[in-house]
Order: sequence, then C-alpha cells, then structure tokens
Amino acid sequence: MERAIALSLENVRAASGGPFAALVVRNGSVIAEGTNQVTATLDPTAHAEVVAIRRACQALKNFQLSDCELYTTCEPCPMCMGAIYWARFAKIYYGNTRADAAKIGFDDSLIYDELVLPLGSRKIPMIPLMRDQALVAFREWEKSPAKTEY
Amino acid sequence: MERAIALSLENVRAASGGPFAALVVRNGSVIAEGTNQVTATLDPTAHAEVVAIRRACQALKNFQLSDCELYTTCEPCPMCMGAIYWARFAKIYYGNTRADAAKIGFDDSLIYDELVLPLGSRKIPMIPLMRDQALVAFREWEKSPAKTEY
Repeated sequence: MERAIALSLENVRAASGGPFAALVVRNGSVIAEGTNQVTATLDPTAHAEVVAIRRACQALKNFQLSDCELYTTCEPCPMCMGAIYWARFAKIYYGNTRADAAKIGFDDSLIYDELVLPLGSRKIPMIPLMRDQALVAFREWEKSPAKTEY
Repeated sequence: MERAIALSLENVRAASGGPFAALVVRNGSVIAEGTNQVTATLDPTAHAEVVAIRRACQALKNFQLSDCELYTTCEPCPMCMGAIYWARFAKIYYGNTRADAAKIGFDDSLIYDELVLPLGSRKIPMIPLMRDQALVAFREWEKSPAKTEY
C-alpha cells in the first residue's frame, strides 16, 4: 500500500490524472501497477484499478486473477468493483473511502446511489428496446460448442 | 439496435467472445462499435460497452461523451454502468436484461447484488488500510493548480 500511495502522489504531482493508484499482487510479488490516466489518455475507463487489472492480465496471460490481491489507494468505484468481480480477485485492500472521494469532487458515491434505483428513475435514462431480437444471440451462445466461458 | 444485435450474433458465431455488442451514436451517426472481447484479448474489462466507449473517446478526442447515446444488446453490468456514468452519456438503449444474462451464466446480477452489501459482507473481502496516509494524495489533488478535473 505504501508503494500504491507513493504512485498516487506522483500521479497528482506529474498532472497525469486523478489521485489514485493500484497494484496487483500475487504471492507477495507485484504483478502490475496502475495509476489513473483518464485525462492523459482520453479514456474514462482508465481508472488505476482498471489499468492495473489490464496489465496484470496481459502479464499473466489470463483473463482471471483469482489468486491475486488488489491494493488500491481508494475504495473502488462501481466500474472498478465490476472489473474486480469479473477478474475474480481473492482480496482487496483499500485506503481512502468513497466518501473521501466524493468530498474532493469524484462521482463514485453518486454512481453507487444510481445503481440501486429502478432503471426508470436514473439520471441517465435507460430505455428497453428489441429484447426479443437481442435474445437470439443469447440462444446462439447457449448452444455454441466453440464458446469460451468466463 | 439492429446493427448492435447483428454484431452480437457475429461475435458468438466467430467465437470472438460473449454474445454482446454496443454502439456509440451521436446525432444519428455511429461514432464507434464494440463487441465483447474478454477471452480473445485476455482483458476482463473488454465488455462491448467499454470497448465502444474507449473507441468513441479516441474518435472524438474527448474523455466525456455527454452528447452521445449508447445502444447495447444487454442491460450493462455494474462495470459498464460505471463507465457509462463516467463518460456521462445522455441516454442508454438496451436489449436483453440482467436476468436474461444471469440465465445464460453471466455474473451481472450477482455483482449488482454484491455492490449493495456492506463492505465486510461481500464475497471478495475488502480490507481498509492506511487511510490517513492515502488521504495525503487527496489533499494534494485539492490544492493542485495543474489538475484536469473529470
């Protein structure tokens, strides 16, 4: 966590992005590091955790990180929590809280609040469309012999 | 949505990834397309929506997509919903539901359930660590004159 905190400070001082950094660790060894690169790379998904997860998966040549731990300088936002669950981490260590992030102007807490609202009551309208047609690909997936499940 | 559904079917038939596709649209024009590439690129964050968002941001040279709409063949998972909120889309159209995705073996619904549990009650343990030290980068961010907010 000391290393992650140092990286988060460097990221602010270098004006490379938000005050966030994350490390993927396996058996006590650092597999990958990430810092927030949203504004530097024009990628709203380039949060520290997502950057570290992508790099770790490339390093380990695996789309799952089930035997890894994540050290992140802030409680992950819903996007990063989703990425963490998809990568199937064993454990997460975090520094700052979502409330700390809200206090300095980041939307993490707002997004958590939005995700529990009914789809029709959210700030970004969500409109159902053509479900019957969309289901065809799901039926095809179920019977595909070539699929790789994840 | 017809185009997105066609892409999702192609993705299954080509065994390129899960049965999902998404389009970013602005003023009736398609800015970017994405399909699920998790297993093909060994990237657990490469959901169709995230792929389309990254490409649209590169195409528009902007880390926000406030004047864009997203057409996705399935209700987005929490990771993708987070990405959608960070990109600040105007509107989302979706085909299949999270329940449809759960029925064919995808964890979307499980992750939604996890995110509303207290941090201590989740399947992936979340352990607070060194908050006081981590807060230093937040204080530094607050007073940084060089920061780009997002």
